[in-house]
Amino acid sequence: MDDRTFLDDAIRRVPDFPKPGILFYDITSVLSRPDVFRFCIDKMHQLYDGEAIDAVVAIEARGFLFAAPFAAENRLPLLPIRKAGKLPGPTVGRSFELEYGRDTIEIHAGDVRRGWNVLLVDDLLATGGTARAAVDLIDEAGGSVRAVFAVIGLPFLGYREALKGADVRTLIEYESESVVR
Amino acid sequence: MDDRTFLDDAIRRVPDFPKPGILFYDITSVLSRPDVFRFCIDKMHQLYDGEAIDAVVAIEARGFLFAAPFAAENRLPLLPIRKAGKLPGPTVGRSFELEYGRDTIEIHAGDVRRGWNVLLVDDLLATGGTARAAVDLIDEAGGSVRAVFAVIGLPFLGYREALKGADVRTLIEYESESVVR
Repeated sequence: MDDRTFLDDAIRRVPDFPKPGILFYDITSVLSRPDVFRFCIDKMHQLYDGEAIDAVVAIEARGFLFAAPFAAENRLPLLPIRKAGKLPGPTVGRSFELEYGRDTIEIHAGDVRRGWNVLLVDDLLATGGTARAAVDLIDEAGGSVRAVFAVIGLPFLGYREALKGADVRTLIEYESESVVR
Repeated sequence: MDDRTFLDDAIRRVPDFPKPGILFYDITSVLSRPDVFRFCIDKMHQLYDGEAIDAVVAIEARGFLFAAPFAAENRLPLLPIRKAGKLPGPTVGRSFELEYGRDTIEIHAGDVRRGWNVLLVDDLLATGGTARAAVDLIDEAGGSVRAVFAVIGLPFLGYREALKGADVRTLIEYESESVVR
C-alpha cells in the first residue's frame, strides 16, 4: 500500500458537518490508529530534517495534536496560538474574516524571539484564513514563518492563494467537487 | 536542582486570570522550554512504564499538548475529549457544573473499545469537575479509567475528592492560600 492510500484509508469523511453541504475530513480517526498517527509525525520529521527551525507554533486545538509530538521529539520550543482570551500572559492578536463573522487568535508576545524561524502547524488547511492570520501574527511578534505544515490540504478552498509566498506542505490533498458550500 | 524546583521554575504565575482573585498556573512557559517540556513527557513515560494502558484520552485543549507526545511515543491510540459540537462523529456526552453555568464534553462513542484501560490526561487538575465528567464519560463509552495524569495539581480546590477512587498522579502540586475565590 502506498503512503497516500495508507493515510487516506484512516481519514474518516463526515458528510454535513459542521453544517449541511460540508464534507468534513476527520483526523480523529488518524489519532486512534497509532500506526497512522506515528506515520504522520515521522513524515513531519522527514520533511523538516535539517531545516533551520527555531520553534514550532501550534494552532488551537487540533494543531496541538501534531505540533506537540514533533516539538517534543525535536526538543524545540512549542508556542500555542489560541482563541482570544485563552492565553494568560501579554499577547498580540489578529482578527480575520470567517464565512460568518470574525475570529481573533492570539500568541504570547514574549514567546517569539526576534529573528526566529518558525514552523506553523495545523491539522488541515482549507481557506487558509486562520493560517494566514497566524503567519501575520508571528511576523508582528518578531518571528518569521519558515514553513507551514498540515496533515490535510483542501486546495479547492483557496489556502494556496491565502498563503502565497509561504512554504506550505501537507501529507494529503483532496480535490473535491462534491462539497457544496 | 531537584525535579520539583526545575519544574516549578518553569511554571509562570499569572495573577487575576481569568478573573480577579485567581492565581493562574500557566503551562505555556513549560512548552516554550524544550528541556522542561521533554522532562514532563519523560516523567509520564516513567510513571506509566509497564502499566496496562490501551489508550490515551486527551482533554481539550491543553491536555492535547501532553497526551499527544505520550501517545505518539508509546504507539497508543489517542482519543480526544472535546467541548460539545466539536467532534464530527457519533458521540456520547456529559454535562457538569461550573462555577457559573454548565459545560458539556463529548467523546466519539466508537473510539473507546469495551474493556479498554485508559490513561486520562489534562494539564492541570483544580476542582476536578472536567476530569470527573471525563471519567464517567469513558465508563459510559465502555472503557475504564486506569489512571489520571496532570502536570499540575491544585488539591486545595478539591480534585482529590472529585476523583475519589481514581489513581491520580501529578508532577507538581501547589497548596495556595493566596488564591481568593
